[in-house]
Formats: sequence, C-alpha cells, structure tokens
Amino acid sequence: MTDRPKTPLLDKVQAPADLKRFSDAELTQVAHELRAETISAVSETGGHLGAGLGVVELTVALHAVFDTPRDRLIWDVSHQSYPHKILTGRRDRIRTLRQKDGLSGFTKRSESPYDPFGAAHSSTSISAALGFAVARDLGGKTPEGIGDAIAVIGDGAMSAGMAFEAMNNAGHLGKRMIVILNDNEMSIAPPTGALSTYLSRLYAEAPFQDLKAAAKSAVSMLPGPFREGAKRAKDMLKGMAVGGTLFEELGFSYLGPIDGHDMSQLLPVLRTIRSRATGPVLLHVITKKGKGYSPAEGARDKGHATAKFDVITGKQKKTPSNAPSYTSVFAKGLLQAAEADDAVCAVTAAMPDGTGLNLFAERYPSRCFDVGIAEQHGVTFAAGLAAGGMKPFCAMYSTFLQRGYDQVVHDVAIQRLPVRFAIDRAGLVGADGATHAGSFDIAFLANLPGFTVMAAADEAELLHMVATAAAHDEGPIAFRFPRGEGAGVEMPERGQPVEIGKGRIVREGGRVALLSFGTRLSEVMKAAEALAAAGLAPTVADARFAKPLDRDLILTLARDHEALITVEEGAIGGFGSHVAQLLAEEGVFDRGLKYRSMVLPDIFIDQASPADMYAVAGMNAAQIEAKVLETLGVAKLGELRA
Amino acid sequence: MTDRPKTPLLDKVQAPADLKRFSDAELTQVAHELRAETISAVSETGGHLGAGLGVVELTVALHAVFDTPRDRLIWDVSHQSYPHKILTGRRDRIRTLRQKDGLSGFTKRSESPYDPFGAAHSSTSISAALGFAVARDLGGKTPEGIGDAIAVIGDGAMSAGMAFEAMNNAGHLGKRMIVILNDNEMSIAPPTGALSTYLSRLYAEAPFQDLKAAAKSAVSMLPGPFREGAKRAKDMLKGMAVGGTLFEELGFSYLGPIDGHDMSQLLPVLRTIRSRATGPVLLHVITKKGKGYSPAEGARDKGHATAKFDVITGKQKKTPSNAPSYTSVFAKGLLQAAEADDAVCAVTAAMPDGTGLNLFAERYPSRCFDVGIAEQHGVTFAAGLAAGGMKPFCAMYSTFLQRGYDQVVHDVAIQRLPVRFAIDRAGLVGADGATHAGSFDIAFLANLPGFTVMAAADEAELLHMVATAAAHDEGPIAFRFPRGEGAGVEMPERGQPVEIGKGRIVREGGRVALLSFGTRLSEVMKAAEALAAAGLAPTVADARFAKPLDRDLILTLARDHEALITVEEGAIGGFGSHVAQLLAEEGVFDRGLKYRSMVLPDIFIDQASPADMYAVAGMNAAQIEAKVLETLGVAKLGELRA
Repeated sequence: MTDRPKTPLLDKVQAPADLKRFSDAELTQVAHELRAETISAVSETGGHLGAGLGVVELTVALHAVFDTPRDRLIWDVSHQSYPHKILTGRRDRIRTLRQKDGLSGFTKRSESPYDPFGAAHSSTSISAALGFAVARDLGGKTPEGIGDAIAVIGDGAMSAGMAFEAMNNAGHLGKRMIVILNDNEMSIAPPTGALSTYLSRLYAEAPFQDLKAAAKSAVSMLPGPFREGAKRAKDMLKGMAVGGTLFEELGFSYLGPIDGHDMSQLLPVLRTIRSRATGPVLLHVITKKGKGYSPAEGARDKGHATAKFDVITGKQKKTPSNAPSYTSVFAKGLLQAAEADDAVCAVTAAMPDGTGLNLFAERYPSRCFDVGIAEQHGVTFAAGLAAGGMKPFCAMYSTFLQRGYDQVVHDVAIQRLPVRFAIDRAGLVGADGATHAGSFDIAFLANLPGFTVMAAADEAELLHMVATAAAHDEGPIAFRFPRGEGAGVEMPERGQPVEIGKGRIVREGGRVALLSFGTRLSEVMKAAEALAAAGLAPTVADARFAKPLDRDLILTLARDHEALITVEEGAIGGFGSHVAQLLAEEGVFDRGLKYRSMVLPDIFIDQASPADMYAVAGMNAAQIEAKVLETLGVAKLGELRA
Repeated sequence: MTDRPKTPLLDKVQAPADLKRFSDAELTQVAHELRAETISAVSETGGHLGAGLGVVELTVALHAVFDTPRDRLIWDVSHQSYPHKILTGRRDRIRTLRQKDGLSGFTKRSESPYDPFGAAHSSTSISAALGFAVARDLGGKTPEGIGDAIAVIGDGAMSAGMAFEAMNNAGHLGKRMIVILNDNEMSIAPPTGALSTYLSRLYAEAPFQDLKAAAKSAVSMLPGPFREGAKRAKDMLKGMAVGGTLFEELGFSYLGPIDGHDMSQLLPVLRTIRSRATGPVLLHVITKKGKGYSPAEGARDKGHATAKFDVITGKQKKTPSNAPSYTSVFAKGLLQAAEADDAVCAVTAAMPDGTGLNLFAERYPSRCFDVGIAEQHGVTFAAGLAAGGMKPFCAMYSTFLQRGYDQVVHDVAIQRLPVRFAIDRAGLVGADGATHAGSFDIAFLANLPGFTVMAAADEAELLHMVATAAAHDEGPIAFRFPRGEGAGVEMPERGQPVEIGKGRIVREGGRVALLSFGTRLSEVMKAAEALAAAGLAPTVADARFAKPLDRDLILTLARDHEALITVEEGAIGGFGSHVAQLLAEEGVFDRGLKYRSMVLPDIFIDQASPADMYAVAGMNAAQIEAKVLETLGVAKLGELRA
C-alpha cells in the first residue's frame, strides 16, 4: 500500500461547516489535499476516479459557500461524489467505497443527510433540485429546513432529454435554483451530439485561463438585481464571455464559462450567486476529468471507472481471467453478423466502451451510432432504422433500457419492428449496487405481445443468441447477459442461430427438474451435482426463451417430475410467471405439482461482489440445493439416501 | 345526418400523386374541401378534430410537393392525420375512424404504406425520421425505396425531452432531413414551459400575416447551397423573421415562421427545401388548432378530442350518464385531501383536463404543476417534492407513465419516496386503441420493492384509495382506475383510508373463488350471479392490493375452494403472477388447486368500445363464467345442477 498523503488542513474538516473557518487560500490547499486523499482512497477501492478529480475544487467551493445540508446539493449521476463524501463526515469510511457494507459509490439518502437525493442514472438532478426549490416555497417540512437547491450536472448528462425537460420547466416556473453545468468535454465516452458542439463553441473562443482576471473583476462589480448584473458583467466581458443563449432562451440566467479548477474564480462567483440570485441560474464551469492525476488525465476515458491501482504508476490491479467477458463475446458476435450482412447496424446511448460497440465502431463507423445519453431517442431511432430496412442492434444496459421503456412498447413492440435488443448488465452487477441492477427487463419485455426474449446461459450461448437475433426479422427480439466474465466454456468459432422458442435439456435426471433462464445455470449445475452425489440426480434444463416459452419442454418436465423449480436473474413477473401461467392454463396445478419460482427477492440489494449479492438474493448453488430439499420436504441432504 | 359537403376537386384525389396535376390555386381549393370533409367525417365518428383542422393546408402542401410514400412523412402523435388519411386512399373508410374494424385514429404501419411510422404517444417523429434518413444513406432496403424523411411535430411535443434528444442527434449527424414544427400555441392544454415562451417570442414581433410577401420573395431569391441561402433570406427579412437560434445551435437550418394556412407560403418554401436542403432543416409553421371551424376555434381545448357532433351547431352528442367518471372522482378525492393537508400537491404532464387536475389547479394553483409533455422530469420532480416534505400526487395515464419508468424505479422506488401515483386510463381504453391501452403498469410497478399498488373496483373504492394514498407516507403508492364512468354505486361523502394490504370478500360462496383486482369486479359479479342462479354460488373477493398481497385472504380462499381464479385488467406479470408466486411458495400447488389467472391476452387489441375490447380479451361476464365452468371441468351451466 502506498503511504497515505499528508492532509493537515483536510484533517480539520469533520463537516462542511468547518470549511467556513478557512481563508480562500486555505480552501485552495484543502482542495489539493482532498484530491490526494481521493486518489489514495480509490487506489485501494477502485471506482469512478476521473469524475471526482474533476470536481475537487468545485466540491470544496460549494460546501464552503453554501450551507449544506440545509442547502440541497445534488450531484448528477453522483459518481463524482467521492470528494463530497470525504468532506461530509464519511472520510473514515471512504476506503470502503463500493464494497459490501461500505459506502455506496453514489450519493444515497440513507447514507447521509448531505446526500439529499440519490443518483446513479444520469440527468435527474435538475428535476430533483426543482422539486426541492418548489417544496421550499410551498413550506415543505423537512428536519433541516430547505435553503437553496443546487444541481451539479455534466455536459453529457445535459444532453439527455430529461435534463431539457427539467430546464424547460424550471425556466418557466422561475424559482430561485442553481444549475452548475460541469463541462468536462467528456461524459463517459467522448461527447456526441449537437449540444456538445454548442458548448465547445461557447468556450472555444475564450480559453478560460484568459477569463480569470475578467471573471474576478466582473463579479466584484455585479450590481443587484442579479439578472441585470449578470448581463452587465457579460457585456463587459465582451468577446470573452460568449454567452449561453440556449440556456437563456430556456429562462435561465447564464454565467460563465469559468475555470472550475481555479478557486479564485469559483468562490467569488458562487458567493455572488448565493447573495444575488432570484430565479434559475446556470453557471457554466469548465473542468478537466481526471484533473491533477496524470495517469487519469492521459487515459482515453480519463479514468472514468477503474479497478484498484498503484498510485505512483497508475497501473490497475485487475485479476487476470481466462474466460472472455460477456460484453466482448457480444461484440465479437456482432462483428460476425455485420460482416455477413450490410444491414446490421448498432445503436448505443453514450456507452460505446461499456457495451463493446467501440470495436464495431472502429470497423464499421458508418453503421454505428452513439446517440448520447438518450435512451428514449435511441430506441425509436433504432425502430426507424428497422422500418427503413436495416437490422439495428440496440445495445443498452438493462437498467438504462428502463429509460426507453415506452419507446420499446410504443415504437417497437406495437409495430412489430425487428429491433434487436442486446441487454448487457442483466441481473445483479456488483459494485454499482442497486441502482444499476438489471432486475426488471424480463418482466417488462416478456409481457409485450410479439416480443422474443432470450437469456444466455453462458458465453457460447450468447454468441449463438447474437446470431439468432441477427437472423430474426419477424419482430423485436432481446437477449440478455450479465456483467463480467463468462463461465469459461469452450467457444465455437461462430454463432449459429438457435430455434426460436426451444430450450434444451442440460442434464437428465428425475424427481425434480430445475429450469434455468440465464447464467444461473452454472450454479444450478453445481447444485444438481451435489444433489446427484447424494443420490438425487435432478433434471436440469436451460430455457433459453422466456418468450415464446418452450411449452413442450416445460409440460414434459412438469409431467415427468414431482417438482419443477424455475431460476432466473430477475424480479417477479418474468420467466417464472410465464411458466406458472402456462402450467395453470394447462391444468397442471389441478393435479398437484411442487412448483417453485426462484426470482430476485423483493428488496433492493446493496453493492457487494455479484456472488455476495446473489447470496443475499438466495440464488447461489447451496441455496438452490436447499430450495430443492425444502420443496421435496426433505430436511437435509443425507435424508435423500434414505 | 348533415348533408355531405361538395368536394369536386377532392373527389379526383385517389392518391397523393393526383395532387401533382393541380395548380397552386386548385391546391388551395382542395384544402378547403379537405377541411369540410374532415369536419363532416369527425361529426359522425367523434375523435380528434382540432389538430387535423390545423394542418389541412400543410397536409395538402406536403403531399403535393413531396413524393409519398417514398418520401416518409411522419406525423407526430398523429391525431392530426385524418386529413392525411383522406388524401392517401382511405377516404372511403374515413367515417369508420376509431371504430371497431375501422380506421385507427392514429397513423399505423399496417393500415397504409403512407403511414411509414405509427404514432400516438408524442415526440417520437424526429427519432423515427432520423432512422429513415440514416437507413436511406446506408442503403436500407424497403419496397418503396427511401427518399426524404419528414417529421411534423407540434410545439407541445417539441417540449418533450425525447424530441430534444433527437434534434441533438440529428444536428450532430447532419443528414438531410426535415422537421416541420407545427406551432399552434396549444398542444392539448395551453402550452407550458420555457420553450413555449421562446416560440411565442419568435413570432410575437412578426405576426405571420405580415410575412406573407416577405416569405415569398425571400424564398424565390434563395441561392444554393441551402444553408447560406436560408441565412441570407433571413437577413433580408430582418426584424420580421426573428430567427430560431435555439434550433440552429442544435445544428438545424431554421426557416420561418411562416403561415401554415397560406398555401402561397407553404408551397414555395417546401419546394425550396425539397430542392435545396443538404442537412437537417427545421421549418417553423404557425397554425391554428381547429382552424376554419368556429365551434372548435372557440373552444378552450380547440376541439382537441370530441364526441360525435352536429356540424352546424358544434353541439356534441354524448350519451348522458348517471355515474361520475373515475377521473372526476379522483379529482374530488384529491381536493378533499388537499383541503385537509397543505402538503398535498399535484403533478401532470400536459394533461390537466384528462387527469382532472384542472379542478385542483383552479382551487390550488400554487400546488399544481403542469410540467408539459415531460413524464421523465415529472416523476423525478415529484420525487424531489416528496424529498422536500410535500405529498405529491403524480397523475398520469397508465400508458404515459411508461415514459417515466426509469424515474419511477431509480428516483422513487429505490429511495422509497412517498410519491402518490394516480394512474388513469388503466386497462383497455376504447377508441384510442392499442397505443393508449394501460396494460403493463401492474406488472412494472408491483415488482418494485417497497411499492404499494392498488386498483379501484368502483368509483367509491377509488375515493377511498385517494384517501389511502394521501395518508400513506411510508413509501411510493399507486392506484389505478379506468377511463370512463363508474359503476353507479352509492358514493360516500368522503374517502376513508383502507387498510394497506387488505382485500375484502364481496360475496360469500363455495367451490370456486373469483379474486378480482380492479373494475372487472362488476363483470365478475355478473358472472357469479349467473352461476349462482344455476346452483353454483362462487365466492367473490376484491383484492384491492396487488402489493402487498392480502396473504391471509388469498390462502384462505385457496384452502376453502376447489378453484381460485384471478381477474385483472392488465398483462401477464402483474397481480395474478404475484398470487401464483404466493401459492407456489406456500406449497398450495403441491396439494393441487385449480388455479387460473385471467389477464389481458398476448396481443395488442385494436380500437373498439371498451366492452368490445374486453370481449376480444376474453374478460367479460360470459367469458368469466365460461372460465369457471372450464376450470371445474363442467361442459355447460346446466350440468352444475347435476
């Protein structure tokens, strides 16, 4: 372990109120120490590094100027909130970030009163801040009272429609609230979209280092009321401050851009806003993701998300793995499909790396579309592509596909358009915790008429499902797969389409049938082997499809076994519910069947390793084994032999 | 019936290609005839009148200038597409609009090649058009080939985040495509939000009648390339054309505003766009909703949606009803709650009339928020209000709540914030058809940890559920209710909170138990009475809650009856799936139980009366009765006595 950095001033900060005793120069020093502490902590825990480093000065300045937690400070996405956590009474636990029973990697209401609104998905902060601002003016009762409402949102997050909706509404209502646009020219991937071009133009002609003196003098001369003041200040800056017409058209007073790493700009501007703002204000702050840590600054993703690393070299300490990741297998399958068919194209919503589409984009740049953080548009754009004769793969994380749900229903399913949904991060995802769990997609897709819904049991199956989706032109089709490495099975050279609506028997046995949908299959097999060793060899089947169901397979399993247990990495309402409906309709329950459906439990599961999370969910091999015994009315494994 | 209008020119139009033979003056005449035909048709069928009347000239001009269906014309929402349907080979069926087996009230791919992309929910058209434009440039294969992609979108729809996402992406890609902003100063309700203020400013200083001559001369002088041309034309117009900076910042060439009822402006501008456009173009057209029919123009909602009416007087022919509508009962309950508690407030997404919040807004304007067509923002804004100590009711149609699904999960459920969801138009909705069906909300809400999900069995129950929601501060709660009038039950003066997680026995009986969730209860009761008359008196229960389930009630019903049948107005994955999961876990199926779950079938059901749609769904009294007999293995009612 690297030595902990020396942080004499930071050591005096137990809570943000302690910052008020420091001079501006000392606050600058606090920021330096906070940066070092953040790097040191994330080197031990892994996590989102670049974003936090980009807002160190902003974090110190906001807490020094405003009166948190009475003033509500809402971090958009909140993967940049580690420095905020260090300043707000959580420094002693900062090295437990993203670990089981540790601090969340995001803000979380239940974790601290300084986290007034949790986040993890992007672009929610302005809506939430507006909610607080309106609640304040209506006399909403909270323990702390409500002062200012401040949203800190990145330029990537600002491109999401939700942020636009919130700006539109906030500009209309005219309540005092503060939006800080943290413009780091980089959300997760390099930015895309016209808005990012617009923002670049706003500061291209006025590199912010030149603004330093001007910003200071301008701010010191701002008269009240604020809006006129800001206008006059901008007039004074002339060509240097280029104005934020787009935001002003939406009813915000625009200030900026200023250098988000210069406390001598941040502090006076924030103080002026605090004392003078009457309506909605947007402060445009330019920051550098990964600022102050050269390995992060130099990385393509600016140290967006990192494993544990060596502070000196920046080298990540990842455990090497033999099996390919599911994401890379999807990427490989997609490339194979695209080679064979010019109509294959792909859509991602600002996650080219996370979804593996970066490889596709390199090979087929004209057929790959990063629409930005815009799942609603992305899904319907894919539907339009399909209507135009293309074969679009819409690659999204399960949890983010929730953003495009209405579009899946209204634009894809009702029109039976052959959009292929590649659903990554299905099931529990580990360190990102409950907000990123892909728990609901089976339920919310499989009940849509005409949808085909698959889950891959392992990485070889995934390759086949990509091929299946590419070949399927009759309507929408989805295949889901988890985060992380595959099971290590032998890989075929190419994927081959599987028959729609057909599962497969993986292990023949008797008395109990285990019917798995997805990658729990490996745990199911472990359970089956343990049971077999004790004299009860279960039948194991891989359903492959939640829709259409393999009716013959399921009814045969039900007929030939005393018990049938389904297992899936999803919440109630999905695969198991479809199986139960079939069994009920076919009168199987009339005659009696020990039927059980293992689904994710009715709780949001906090971050831990995926294995630990599945243990909480009651879905590992031992728990599946226990479920079999309980269903058969057997107290323990030994009894089976009797 | 009123005499049909005389339409000599329109009579010659079998397809849009026929318009190409007409002079500009004749096209103006065609528009007059098309308006008369539209009014005449809607007077017989009811439907969306105002929106169609606002785009009569635009419809004629677009079809005259462009080459549909090769050029893809995509109507946003598409409730304004009746004139388009008349021009595109469907005039002979236009008087079947929104009726069973008739034309859909919206565009529909399966109905006509002239409907390249169906719609009904707002703000999807730009995404779809971009999909076509990209598919065209990638060589996507379709029977017609692909020419231009044109989206016609209203100012209200433009305020949705999805439209912004699409503009941002389209501006970035720079493909040739055309967005026509149909600015009628009125989506469904009077417009709200900063964008609408911005649009007003764009034409406030330049009433469009003054622009007529200027627009003509400007267009005739446009040189290529187009973008410079448009700029020069605008410079020429000086103070009159005020520019659309916001759209230009997003990468679009902005043209307008022009008078959307003046063919002498529309035709040349569209021709210029067609011949010169190289990238994305936004044409700003000012129209008047209800144009040319004074009863519609004079109405507050500009004839948005109407029943059948008398063409001369405009008087609507609604069947009088004795029972209050569910919407009005919700509104009444909300007012009662708000009187008793200052913290009660309400959020609607551009549907103050449809959700009944108009009454609330009149009485408590400072506590009622119309966020515009912005369900994503609306849900999270409500979450922010709740976090700020308020008691927000988020009133949305079931189908539109799909737009805010991720926000329901991420901002409300995970944070356990007490947002009250008042879900109107649950279940099948009649004339609006499949796109507006509220089929999925039970499934997608009841599987969220910590959510309470209720359905009202009748209007009195609804009043109690509003009171229950108002009193429930422990987490999110939803109550759903259908479109239309109540069952006519006796109404209490005030709602009283019901016990969370407790259902009720409505009728004591034996052998079979019918467990209803929602307003199918009246059909269930009819079925029960018919069965009782034949000697089998079923038990009937109203579950009230899909979550938490009334375990005692359900397990008792299962224990005491040979068969248990659930009935709900929703798709698979909802109430019945939760009941099945309980029965499975409790080992009830081990011993055998004739369990059935009646849910909406696995098809999208086309428009018809709600009663007809439920007949298609197999969920009316006779069908419930048949289900009981089939479950018991009884061939017909008479056998019961044996």
